[in-house]
Amino acid sequence: MDILRAALIQHAFKGTKHKTLEFTKEQVLQASKLGAKLVILQELHTQEYFCQSEDVHFFDYALDFQDDVKFFAQVAKEASVVLVTSLFERRSAGLYHNTAVVFESDGSIAGKYRKMHIPDDPGFYEKFYFTPGDLGFEPIKTSLGKLGVMVCWDQWYPEGARIMALKGADLLIYPTAIGWFPSDSQEEKDRQREAWIGIQRGHAIANGIPTIAVNRVGFESDASGVMEGICFWGSSFAFGAQGEELIMGSTDQEEILQVQIDLKRSEEVRRIWPFLRDRRIESYQDILKRYCD
Amino acid sequence: MDILRAALIQHAFKGTKHKTLEFTKEQVLQASKLGAKLVILQELHTQEYFCQSEDVHFFDYALDFQDDVKFFAQVAKEASVVLVTSLFERRSAGLYHNTAVVFESDGSIAGKYRKMHIPDDPGFYEKFYFTPGDLGFEPIKTSLGKLGVMVCWDQWYPEGARIMALKGADLLIYPTAIGWFPSDSQEEKDRQREAWIGIQRGHAIANGIPTIAVNRVGFESDASGVMEGICFWGSSFAFGAQGEELIMGSTDQEEILQVQIDLKRSEEVRRIWPFLRDRRIESYQDILKRYCD
Repeated sequence: MDILRAALIQHAFKGTKHKTLEFTKEQVLQASKLGAKLVILQELHTQEYFCQSEDVHFFDYALDFQDDVKFFAQVAKEASVVLVTSLFERRSAGLYHNTAVVFESDGSIAGKYRKMHIPDDPGFYEKFYFTPGDLGFEPIKTSLGKLGVMVCWDQWYPEGARIMALKGADLLIYPTAIGWFPSDSQEEKDRQREAWIGIQRGHAIANGIPTIAVNRVGFESDASGVMEGICFWGSSFAFGAQGEELIMGSTDQEEILQVQIDLKRSEEVRRIWPFLRDRRIESYQDILKRYCD
Repeated sequence: MDILRAALIQHAFKGTKHKTLEFTKEQVLQASKLGAKLVILQELHTQEYFCQSEDVHFFDYALDFQDDVKFFAQVAKEASVVLVTSLFERRSAGLYHNTAVVFESDGSIAGKYRKMHIPDDPGFYEKFYFTPGDLGFEPIKTSLGKLGVMVCWDQWYPEGARIMALKGADLLIYPTAIGWFPSDSQEEKDRQREAWIGIQRGHAIANGIPTIAVNRVGFESDASGVMEGICFWGSSFAFGAQGEELIMGSTDQEEILQVQIDLKRSEEVRRIWPFLRDRRIESYQDILKRYCD
């Protein structure tokens, strides 16, 4: 199968988890009816982006992890799609991860990825909630190919993308929750969004591999009332193996973005631009250092 | 000094080395008069892009290496600028490099960089001419800051950019010679140019560091008559530390592109997006492998 039909579901939080789950299920079924074989959801899509504040009560959300897995296993099976989800995983008391779970179209678990790079800046207090992943950068084998699934902050790191490519990933996939502070200037907002797109486009180009990101949309206030809230900027996208834009979502609308990914393009692009051939692996040791001082 | 005034000299080959050297010298002096303190030349700027064919006679060009160094030392001194050149270095009989030599504004040599990643594809037969560099990725200290100078094909590798950043480079600089085959479709030409811009913009973003490329312009035929020739696409550019476009050259004109680089931006951008803080260096070992199979 050379053409992979994928759907990126960009949506807002619906006020409650129940409503959000029902909406998401309907969207996945709709995407399947439209022909998608791979459906990708945004980061932490079952809830609001709760990391805007540090509150121990939000760990309650992770108590549902096993139920969430069962729910989305059923959704994947019912829709008969490979489904990329992003869930809050409780591994033990006091030990939580930001975890992407990938389901086969029969509802079985294809694999999972625990977010490796954890951000922490005002309004994005993820180091409070999530232990950095300990599964490394391992593509998840599915009936559609090897999926190089990472999560949000990972998208800023060329290292993760490169390792996924070296391990044979057929495409890179980033569920994401990123947005603007309303008080930032339009120029700053534009720079941030363009940088977010640009860095991931760079991964596609550097590795000759299609790259997909799915981001939430809509404004969410800070439950603690301290921060001004976040306006998630949508803009879910897919780039092809040469970094060519295949689809780009809006900044403010819920959308099912349908895209056809030509998996043969990696073979073609890497023949004319054989970057993997010429890597100076004996000269990259400093990559493993924190800093060279 | 927070604002670095740089000039990117994008030009065509003038038919002979002598004419090209005289033109280049005049351009550097002109850039200096316009206020530039840092002047950057394109890849192998003293000659035509001779790597379109494999011909042992072209090694004669490298016999001039020491003379070229003397010439550009004098140019840097006369213009009183830090000057980034790109020369064909004869190191011994049968041992040549594609070498960037950086001169201080007093004409002394600040340092040199030998192109680490060497391409080889039809019309760009560089593996015939150049031994891969053995100086690693070391920023060159100058009176204007630490310059992360690499050359052309290096620009496709996030590893080099990252190591330069980890070693404290204040900006990345890529002298380049890249262009289109005239027979390619406009769509393919656009994809190639955009990918070339995109990958380097990605380095700026990933590392929070300004990034400059200087590319030659104009059509050059293949001396062997086998290939159709190359239309070098210019588009010399500078991006800021957040990946914001500062300047972009034309695809078909000789130009002195003047740009002011705010070196404080790296401090600001890396505070709001502290990517270096969160690197998972204990999980990057696979970067040192050719492939993970």
